[in-house]
Amino acid sequence: MQHLWFNCHAATLAGGRYASIEDAAIVTAGGHIQWIGPYADAPDGNYAQRHDLHGAWVTPGLIDCHTHAVFGGNRSAEFEQRLQCVSYAEIAAAGGGIASTVRATRAASEDELLASASQRVRALLRDGVTTLEIKSGYGLDLANERKMLRVIRRLGDTLPVTVRATCLAAHALPPEFAGRSEAYIDLVCDEMLPTLAREELVDAVDAFCEHLAFSPAQVERVFIAAQQLGLPVKLHAEQLSALAGSSLAARYQALSADHLEFMTLADAQAMAAAGTVAVLLPGAFYFLRETQLPPVQMLREQGVAMAIASDLNPGTSPALSLRLMLNMACTLFRLTPEEALAGVTLNAAKALGLGASHGSLEVGKVADFVAWQIAQPAELAYWLGGELHKRVIRHGRELIDV
Amino acid sequence: MQHLWFNCHAATLAGGRYASIEDAAIVTAGGHIQWIGPYADAPDGNYAQRHDLHGAWVTPGLIDCHTHAVFGGNRSAEFEQRLQCVSYAEIAAAGGGIASTVRATRAASEDELLASASQRVRALLRDGVTTLEIKSGYGLDLANERKMLRVIRRLGDTLPVTVRATCLAAHALPPEFAGRSEAYIDLVCDEMLPTLAREELVDAVDAFCEHLAFSPAQVERVFIAAQQLGLPVKLHAEQLSALAGSSLAARYQALSADHLEFMTLADAQAMAAAGTVAVLLPGAFYFLRETQLPPVQMLREQGVAMAIASDLNPGTSPALSLRLMLNMACTLFRLTPEEALAGVTLNAAKALGLGASHGSLEVGKVADFVAWQIAQPAELAYWLGGELHKRVIRHGRELIDV
Ligand SMILES: [Zn+2]
Ligand SMILES: [Zn+2]
Repeated sequence: MQHLWFNCHAATLAGGRYASIEDAAIVTAGGHIQWIGPYADAPDGNYAQRHDLHGAWVTPGLIDCHTHAVFGGNRSAEFEQRLQCVSYAEIAAAGGGIASTVRATRAASEDELLASASQRVRALLRDGVTTLEIKSGYGLDLANERKMLRVIRRLGDTLPVTVRATCLAAHALPPEFAGRSEAYIDLVCDEMLPTLAREELVDAVDAFCEHLAFSPAQVERVFIAAQQLGLPVKLHAEQLSALAGSSLAARYQALSADHLEFMTLADAQAMAAAGTVAVLLPGAFYFLRETQLPPVQMLREQGVAMAIASDLNPGTSPALSLRLMLNMACTLFRLTPEEALAGVTLNAAKALGLGASHGSLEVGKVADFVAWQIAQPAELAYWLGGELHKRVIRHGRELIDV
Repeated sequence: MQHLWFNCHAATLAGGRYASIEDAAIVTAGGHIQWIGPYADAPDGNYAQRHDLHGAWVTPGLIDCHTHAVFGGNRSAEFEQRLQCVSYAEIAAAGGGIASTVRATRAASEDELLASASQRVRALLRDGVTTLEIKSGYGLDLANERKMLRVIRRLGDTLPVTVRATCLAAHALPPEFAGRSEAYIDLVCDEMLPTLAREELVDAVDAFCEHLAFSPAQVERVFIAAQQLGLPVKLHAEQLSALAGSSLAARYQALSADHLEFMTLADAQAMAAAGTVAVLLPGAFYFLRETQLPPVQMLREQGVAMAIASDLNPGTSPALSLRLMLNMACTLFRLTPEEALAGVTLNAAKALGLGASHGSLEVGKVADFVAWQIAQPAELAYWLGGELHKRVIRHGRELIDV
């Protein structure tokens, strides 16, 4: 059952970099790309269906490779308080900050978490997202991390999107372990990770390396535990200070190191050598009004692949649009629109360990793509908010009513 | 034919400021609000229909009081060039900048402009916008300004939104008048404004007061011409430098002065005395990476009403979401979520001269409102991009498939 998709241009991202074909055609079969090239060269075939794309630009389906989309409650009240000049210390003293999200997530049922996360994920899908990573990390005990990871699996089962589950048990110290962070890391390494991995709820393991979270030595213990379970790792690193977390991540062949505002040249060199992707999160940079920019030029010079993600989370990036992150990556971080597009396709796939099957329009890859009604690819990064007209094709079939 | 809308909370903005009613009900009849108050006090009535809003928060329909939504082409190629480090001078020398939008707008047919603008306006409507201002200003001669204004009228006729048309013929100097700005202002005042007003295409008159556009003396000539035609005025003022344009606007009882990053205390005092609304445009501030913030605290202290708008335009704010502007007004300008909501309802209505009929949920006003599926009004400013679940009621009827 071959399908022909024609009357389009294609931003293929083939060969590991931005690339495009004008007047292109794509042949899909069995959910994969069987052929792609100039329409004039398209193979004659007895196509089950021919799909006229009316001059659209086709890109790979967008990939959001860093989200915390599952959580209880939200932090809009805290957002409002801070604008009313309530200090961060007062908010924390009143139980605000991440502690409030942990409480709300623990208090919510699996079905409640599924319902609220589904709405947020649907918002991301309306932007052309076909693959999505979601982290746990607001449960912080076995039962509640399991609950989050089960919700993440169910999102992948119920929505038209490929979901990768990352266990972020080492996100913050739970209140019941106050002053006993080593004991919590023991629990993560000895019990939580092995149990959750055995239950096949985990595709990768992440941690938060920062003064207010876990030290490099503690993160390394988590990485070793993941390695023993055969799970790839990633890391929240260098967001607020330089701890060489990204170098540590590279030593463990991490799929990605994320945030990176304070990274050093040595970090970038280590990441380049290990093939670790730099995931930039402009939503959090914007929302927190940070001023330390990630070293984009250094990443370019060192040849580190850059991805861009929403970081969707209630405290520091309540972002419901990946396209808006493209604009912020260009406007705030000065990426080019081509770099930004590679950052939510090719490099985002690499950051999820899906580089062989996703992220570009190439023969043999999964037929996930978006046909955008735009005159040139730069428009994906140019328009600010709103929704662009598009058609979304997943596994070779057009989604109706995304 | 009375309708009852119940099981909701209402952010009414009644009495000229943020105000709310928990467990509210609204009675509409003939497209207007006939009663609003606590559900327990709702009048017994033989309602034609009872609408269960399922605990939603109801706000006035959102009002975008400053847009340039009608234009030919777009400037995504220029956006890309600038990120590839092509200098502004090179882009201008190659015919870029506003001149390229003027060329593309002049070259486009009325139907083409209508088609492209309709898509952008639909994006705004999906955010709960029920009233919208659109400016001309890329035609810059009688025929092309007329073409734009006719498109603006047709948008109001064909889409479910109330549209106000503003003539911005004094937006930029057209190329054929290079070096003869006084002659162009003659044309605007003596021919364009009188003709377009006679054709009932103009609800208000705007101008751009800036070194790279028109001087205060030239703007004053435009204001006098508008006054003679009985048309209210507004002004793009103090965006890039302090020319006391906003004081000038206040002297002519302008509905609004817009941008205002460089305004002075004297400007704010003049605006407060005249009742001129300050329209803040965070999208342009963000997109241009400006650093001079509008003096929000001064505006508060002087009692100047603040509105927020998208400034949707191809060069400096390609914004397709008014809710995103609420977030930017809070995040970048430090407005509170309540101030931001008043800025796209109550004060935006004032900025369009519609304060008596729109912008709040009060008896006698037009029944334009949005029922948002959120737990608290601050969420309207908190979420970053995407679309929130909502129902939109316009003239007392629910819109299907906004
Ligand atoms: Zn994160
Ligand atoms: Zn403007």
